[in-house]
Amino acid sequence: MSVMKLVIGDYKKSSWSLRAWLVLVTADVPFEVIQIKLGEPQTGERILAYSASGKVPVLLQDDLSINDSLAICEYVAEHWPQAQLWPADAGLKALARSACAEMHAGFTQLRTQLPFGVDRGEPAQVLSPATEAEIQRVFAIWRQLLARSQSEAFLCGTFGVVDAMFAPVLLRLMRYGIAIPGDLKPYADAVLLHPPVLLWLKLAMQEI
Amino acid sequence: MSVMKLVIGDYKKSSWSLRAWLVLVTADVPFEVIQIKLGEPQTGERILAYSASGKVPVLLQDDLSINDSLAICEYVAEHWPQAQLWPADAGLKALARSACAEMHAGFTQLRTQLPFGVDRGEPAQVLSPATEAEIQRVFAIWRQLLARSQSEAFLCGTFGVVDAMFAPVLLRLMRYGIAIPGDLKPYADAVLLHPPVLLWLKLAMQEI
Repeated sequence: MSVMKLVIGDYKKSSWSLRAWLVLVTADVPFEVIQIKLGEPQTGERILAYSASGKVPVLLQDDLSINDSLAICEYVAEHWPQAQLWPADAGLKALARSACAEMHAGFTQLRTQLPFGVDRGEPAQVLSPATEAEIQRVFAIWRQLLARSQSEAFLCGTFGVVDAMFAPVLLRLMRYGIAIPGDLKPYADAVLLHPPVLLWLKLAMQEI
Repeated sequence: MSVMKLVIGDYKKSSWSLRAWLVLVTADVPFEVIQIKLGEPQTGERILAYSASGKVPVLLQDDLSINDSLAICEYVAEHWPQAQLWPADAGLKALARSACAEMHAGFTQLRTQLPFGVDRGEPAQVLSPATEAEIQRVFAIWRQLLARSQSEAFLCGTFGVVDAMFAPVLLRLMRYGIAIPGDLKPYADAVLLHPPVLLWLKLAMQEI
């Protein structure tokens, strides 16, 4: 079995790449990065060489091409169980998966009005009511998981798939100066100080 | 443990409800249906009584509320393994999950231009290039899974999560008179004759 490869976009631009990358690095899985710069004339063609979906991230292992961030997370969690990327408790795991799926398919206003990026700070904007409602929904999801797991840091105890899925949201909120409620500060601090998150931010800063 | 409840929308309208319902019925899991009619003044409030996400489907078990179709599918597949809702082969499973995740978060043009419904036929429309490209991508996903699983009917051998995720797409294509390529006909026929699919269509027809 050859070493896995993760095809990603720019560190400073690609929030979906960040999610898959965080899970692999957290699980201490050996992998190589293939980076494709986004927004260039050849970008589409370069991605299509690895995945017919035309999107990053893509995880390559032998003849396998897994072309979605959530599916990559599930794959790593299943094959590296010692990393405990899902909580052991069945109910908590179901809620964590539910939160991940909701993030994966939704929050379009938040994602549109607050584009991901680590290259420059932006002033707080006037948020649309829809974006504001989505931010409150994110906080509600975090609170529900923290309450059920009785965790004071990561959403389900240790850094897992659900933390990786929401890490770019947290970075978005910080980028646009949107306050994190006090009760969620310990969680936000834990994510921002998680060594793989710091490493990604460092790589992103080097790109600029 | 009390019997599970699945909160769904109208049979004739709610494609996401169909996905979760199909997986539960296929796995022969005992559950009760709570139906909330969509598009009525009280719809939003009624859904919020079961799920803070404000969306159907929602799976309720004891104190657990799983509020996303893909997370519901994962939950059923994990807790009723005898239903073999994911293929046993690890590579095929990863590709099936990838296809499900891509469906779950994408194909927005197809979903917008070809709204789900079983209440009336519609003439074939002039498809936008983006919708046409998404349809071709769906066909490519189906072909990839069928080739790898060497199945002549369901995408991974037996009816599983990935077939449930794409069943509403197939019903959309048929509703709008979009031709299914000949090599994919056996798959389309297998899905349409899958007894839970027929049961859903019967329930939808009774609603009209």
